This record gives sequence, C-alpha cells and structure tokens, in this order.
Amino acid sequence: MSRLLIHNGFFITMDEQMPSEFQGWMAIEGDKIVGLGQGQAPEEELTQASEVMDGKGLLFMPGLVNTHGHAAMSLLRGLADDLNLQDWLQNHMWPTEAKFTGDDVYWGSALSAAEMIKSGTTTFVDMYDHMHRVAEVVEQSGLRASLTRGVIGLCPEDVQKAKLEDAIQFAKDWHGAADGRISVMISPHAPYTCPPDYILKFVEAAHELDLPMHTHMSESIAEVEQNVRDYGYRPVEHLDRLGMFSRPTLVAHAVHLNDEEIALLAERKVAVSHNPVSNLKLASGVARVPDLLKAGVTVSLGTDGAASNNNLDLFQEISMAALLHKGVSGDPTVVPAAEALRMGTVHGARALGLEGVTGQLKTGLKADFIALAITKPHFVPHTDYVSHLVYAARGSDVAHVWVNGKQLLRDGQLLTLDEEKILAEAERCFQRLRG
Amino acid sequence: MSRLLIHNGFFITMDEQMPSEFQGWMAIEGDKIVGLGQGQAPEEELTQASEVMDGKGLLFMPGLVNTHGHAAMSLLRGLADDLNLQDWLQNHMWPTEAKFTGDDVYWGSALSAAEMIKSGTTTFVDMYDHMHRVAEVVEQSGLRASLTRGVIGLCPEDVQKAKLEDAIQFAKDWHGAADGRISVMISPHAPYTCPPDYILKFVEAAHELDLPMHTHMSESIAEVEQNVRDYGYRPVEHLDRLGMFSRPTLVAHAVHLNDEEIALLAERKVAVSHNPVSNLKLASGVARVPDLLKAGVTVSLGTDGAASNNNLDLFQEISMAALLHKGVSGDPTVVPAAEALRMGTVHGARALGLEGVTGQLKTGLKADFIALAITKPHFVPHTDYVSHLVYAARGSDVAHVWVNGKQLLRDGQLLTLDEEKILAEAERCFQRLRG
Repeated sequence: MSRLLIHNGFFITMDEQMPSEFQGWMAIEGDKIVGLGQGQAPEEELTQASEVMDGKGLLFMPGLVNTHGHAAMSLLRGLADDLNLQDWLQNHMWPTEAKFTGDDVYWGSALSAAEMIKSGTTTFVDMYDHMHRVAEVVEQSGLRASLTRGVIGLCPEDVQKAKLEDAIQFAKDWHGAADGRISVMISPHAPYTCPPDYILKFVEAAHELDLPMHTHMSESIAEVEQNVRDYGYRPVEHLDRLGMFSRPTLVAHAVHLNDEEIALLAERKVAVSHNPVSNLKLASGVARVPDLLKAGVTVSLGTDGAASNNNLDLFQEISMAALLHKGVSGDPTVVPAAEALRMGTVHGARALGLEGVTGQLKTGLKADFIALAITKPHFVPHTDYVSHLVYAARGSDVAHVWVNGKQLLRDGQLLTLDEEKILAEAERCFQRLRG
Repeated sequence: MSRLLIHNGFFITMDEQMPSEFQGWMAIEGDKIVGLGQGQAPEEELTQASEVMDGKGLLFMPGLVNTHGHAAMSLLRGLADDLNLQDWLQNHMWPTEAKFTGDDVYWGSALSAAEMIKSGTTTFVDMYDHMHRVAEVVEQSGLRASLTRGVIGLCPEDVQKAKLEDAIQFAKDWHGAADGRISVMISPHAPYTCPPDYILKFVEAAHELDLPMHTHMSESIAEVEQNVRDYGYRPVEHLDRLGMFSRPTLVAHAVHLNDEEIALLAERKVAVSHNPVSNLKLASGVARVPDLLKAGVTVSLGTDGAASNNNLDLFQEISMAALLHKGVSGDPTVVPAAEALRMGTVHGARALGLEGVTGQLKTGLKADFIALAITKPHFVPHTDYVSHLVYAARGSDVAHVWVNGKQLLRDGQLLTLDEEKILAEAERCFQRLRG
C-alpha cells in the first residue's frame, strides 16, 4: 500500500490532545492517517514512505465540513438577491427549480463540488431532489458527503407516497457507497412544508433504516408563528412530539429559539447547522449561537445553497460565525477563534455522526485534510495561525486537498473533475432554465 | 505617450450614465482613462494603441477605496483577539505600538500595501504616526492614499504642541506628492483622546492648510457616554460645536448615533467610514447604515487596522456591509448589492474629496482600476456580476491592478514591491517588538 509522508509542515489538528499548532509531520497509508507528530519526522517514517512531500510554507488542517446545503442551487447563484425568504423561495427559487432535470442537478452539483474542493471543504451535506445524480458527483469527485432526499409534502397523497419511497430507495441504494464516503440522512424538508402525519412516516423510515434525520427548522420568525397557529406548538416541541429527536437529528438554521427550545435541543442531543451568511442575506435573523454553545448543543456550519449565500466558501462561514455573534451580543469574547474553527471541522463531523472518521487530524481517522499556502501577506506575522485561519484566511488560500487519502486538489488544480467542462455545462443548464 | 487598449473585457464602471455591466473596451493614456465603450473597440482605438490587452475572462472595475485604516498595525495581526475595545487598545495595542520605530511603521505599512494591492484596493486612508515612512511606501508602491498623522492628545502641553507641529509639517511636505497620488487630512485621533481646546487647534490648522479632517467617532457606547459625562454633549454635537464640520470631514465608525446625530451629519455633509468587520470583532456594535444612507450621508467602507479585522480585503467589507444590515434590521432589501459596491468605490472616493479622480471608470478620471479573473466556479452562472462581486467574490480573485495608469499587479504578482522581502522584514519587526 502506498504511504505518503508529509514533513516540515505546520499543523493544526483540532485534536485537543495535541498543541493547538505545531511544526511537524504526518503519515498517510491508504485512506487513513497512520502517524502524526511534532518536530522532525522519525527516520523510520522517511524510509517507510513511498512518497515524501515537503510541507514547507503549508499549513495542514482537517478538511472543512459543510453541514447544510443544496449543491444544485449553484445554478441559481445571483438569479434573485435582496428579497425576503418567502418571496425569494416562492417566486424565484421554486418556479425555476421546478424545471430542474436530473441533468441540471448533476451539473449544478458538479459546479458546487468544484467550488467546495477548491475552498477546502472535504465533507458536505446535500439535501435536494434527483439525489442519485448528486451521489454520482460525490462518487466521481472523491468528496465525502451526507446526502438526503429533501421532501416537500405539500402535494397529493400519491405524490407524497412516491417521494417518500424515492427517499427510502435512495438511502438503500447509496448509504455506505463510494468506499463509504457517502452516508444518507432522512429528510422531511421542514415542519412548514410537511404535514405532521407525513413527518411521522419519515421518522418511521429513519428508524427502520437506522439513519439520522435532517430538516430545516425555525429559519424565519414567520414560520415559527405559522407552526404555532397550525399545530399549537413551536417547531422544536412539534418535532419532538413527532418523535424526530428519537433519531440522531441535524437541524439547519435554528435561528428563532426560546430558552426552553435550546434546553430541549441540548437534552435530545440535536445538532444544529448554523448558516450565518444565508440567514443574514435573507434577513432571517441571527441565531443564538453563544447560548446554544453554552447549553452544550453541537453547533456546526453550513453555507446553505449558493443562491442565498452566494458562494460555498466555508472559511467565510467560520469567519462570520466568529465575528457576527460578538457584534450582535456586545461581548467580544463569545465564539472565540478556536471555537469557530471547531464549528467548521470537528463539530461538523460530530453533527453528521462522523466523529472518529473526519474533522480532525489524528491517527486512525480517515485522511481528509487540506493544505493552505501561508507565505502571503495576510498570514504575516506568525502570531497565531488559529486566529489567521478564522479572521484572515479565505478558501482561495487552499492549495491542496485530500479525502480518504486521495488527493483531489493539487496547487489549486482539480484532479478528479474537469473544471472547464463543468463551468461550460453549468452555464448551458442555466441558460436553458432561464430561457 | 503610451496608450493601452483593453478590449473583449467585461466592465462594471460604477458610472450611472452607463449600463450596470457590459462587454466592451477601455483606453488609457498616461495616468488617465481616455475612452470607454460597449461592444467591439473602434478601429481607430486599435490603431492608436501602443499596447493592446485581451480582456477575455476578466472583469474590469474601479479600484477599491479603503477609507479607514492603520497600515502599520498589520505587524500586530493576530496578537490579541477576542477582547473588548478598551482592553485590546490599552493593554495590547498601545503598549506594543509605543515601541514602534519608523522602521516598524515602514515595514508594517509595506506589508499592508502588498496585501491591499493583491486584493484590489487602489486608494487607502492611513492614520498613524511616523507618517513620512508611510508616505515613502505610497511613493514606492504606486498606490493612491489619503494620509494623516493621527494625534492622541492625552499628554503634556509641550508634547501636544510637538505632535500638532508634526501633523502640520507632514501635510506641508506631502500633500500633493507622488504625482498627486498622496493627499493629506488633519486628524485629532478621537474626541475621547483629545481635549476640546486641542481639537480646536486641529480645526484651525485644517482651515489654514485648506485640508479635510478625519477622526474616530462614536465607535463604542462607552465612549459616547464618557463624552456626555466629560463635555455635556454626545460626540456629533461636540465636534460640531468645536467647528470640525466646518471642514470637509470623514468620521470613522459612527456606530452609536441617534436620529438627531444622523440628521446633523447629513446636514453638515460629513462622510462616514463604515468598518463592519472591525466593529463586529471588537463587539462595538452595528452602525445604523440603512438610516445613514436614507438620510443621504455618504457611507464608505474601511477595514480599520489588520489587528482588529484581521485582513485588509475590502471585498469582505463590501460583502459584510451587504449582508449584516439585512440580518440585523430584518429587512432583506436594505444595502442591496449595487449600493454595497458603491460604498467600496465611488462613495469612498467622494468621502475623500476624490470624486472625479477615482472610484469610477469614466473618461477623464485617473486610471485606477482592477481586473478580476472570473472563469471560476463561484462566478458561474452569468446571472449578475454586480451580485457576484458583492456576494461571491473575494480579494484573491483580483489578477491585475493599475493606479494612475501604471500597473502594480500582474497575474497576482506585485510589480512595484518586493513581496518576499516585505514578508521577511515584517516578521523580523514583529519578533523584535514581541522580544
């Protein structure tokens, strides 16, 4: 088996057993990290290695984990901005998305995969339709993903039934596929788009398939109010009563929460995907992240779709998470840099049930890691690279990316995807959709 | 005189007489834009040109204007994060800055100049000490700058006197220097760091020298309250009573304003430098930008020093300005993309009295412009490049930069500064300061 040794590199492992940053080495065999240490690489590592890489001028860290998105929506980037959520969804996104074919989903997702790899994301969540086409992109790109057929249940019973079956079939076909890089979640789209009895069927399916659940929750104040009007409960209690939190669950957004809801999420070990850029852009509000963290909730980060972001650079979410909550709370000590970086890496892995698989550099974990070129003005002086990663870096600093021990990006060039073709095909798909 | 013709490019001019974006051409002779148009370049332009550049795959726009900063503070990037403003200033910044020599200011400013050019800023404001060393950096780098000796007046009278004389001498020596690329402003540092009678002397000097004024104002709530306690007025009325607004004035931050203050700033035509990232990071709060814009105040954008940002990428400020105020106000229509882009370009020029000089692509203006490489996933599809620049772009997309008709960056490489030497010298300065 080939064995890669990286030496003379700078490392941020996100493993609390290690110093927060150090000069050192890392060995990768097959799809795993098999050794990691400070200082000079041991002589036997050098002799054992089939490939040696000089890490000088590079900062190695875990690949980023993007815990909420709709990859195919990158086809709609910039189509409609500066509108409110319901107007944006109902008058712009949904009518255009209704025209999406499997081909559109494939090329839109490929466009997103290219952007995510180039900006350092190694694991992403995708909730959409035509999911087998997204799975193909994951298979080909080499990324790790947690995929889920997001089902909107505002439709006749026979259509509801077909959608649920589609979600279940997708799970059966793809969970564990692509050398284990693909895992699957079960997703009613949101409490406001799925009637309670329909949500119950997803909970049941998740139990039968032994899979986690994912949904949008409490993104806007209007949807919380509607939930109370329609069902008598706020969304957290509503979903809890429907049994969703008896499964491992990841909720996206969770912007509008009261104290009781935060306590219940913590008690039920529900993870949150915080999407600060999308929430700002759609004026949904500012999630109570410092309170969620204080309550012990696992808070991870997501870009949401590119149509409400409008990029997939998770470094922007990390930076935004660190900045926004300070300014809004008036407390400059909340969400310190190291916490924001955990949200983008190890908390993301935990939110997806992938702790111990990805999100850290650690012997025994899958070799999902990225290298940033740090010989640049915005990384000088060498005070604190954790701070620099959070407050100064951007996705474009990423030079190399590996997932499952396989290199996907070298010197900024994609190794598994044909970027030129993807850009052209994505443009072609958009022009047809608009046309 | 050499004449450059750029054709086949994509243009966003920020000139409201032109379409918001178009395919076209631009001609530059000496330091000026001498022609600009849509479609194919006219035959006579092609024959007249001494150099022709193919603009395919590039988006040309005005260089960005960063209206508040402390360039030398990039030496302190990442030194102290996640602290409140007064703690950060008094216990970390000021003690280290007290050790700054002219050499430190030179290399810190050069580090910032390198970062600013590489991320598309062509004009910047700098308020600091040892300003002739900053002016040297401007001279050598080819950037345009509005420089000002920022004076803290909490010192004995003879030191106050010497500092004021230094500020005046700097203005006399450097205003209009470097082929007119340098202009000078007069700056008492802030109402809370300069006694009223001392501020009066700066106002007097600004009148004598016929120069605009620049100061920090109402950055934190504590300083507003202190102003009321010490002087009986909130900062806007305080400065107005001291006659500052009888000069063209640019105030940095302006976070904590009441309705009367906003009305008075509009009436006095005081321009604001909005520094959203720094204000969030120091938990100073969120400026009332939608209200300022509604009142007709010129709102521009600044990074502040790299120690409270922690980079100098003005594209991040543009994006933050467009995102933040939507989320905080709950209104997704405020600060639309085009407005945020104006804040980073033409409003910045106006705030510095440089309207008609820079901030737009327009015949007769100085040739200060940048070109972004847009054949990248995050610029696809071609829906709306104004939206893409604001919500998807980052400074690293900038490939080429020109100021006063002279190219400063080519394919991401600095042409006027020695990047490798600057990074090494900045690191050396920091290690000595920390020492």
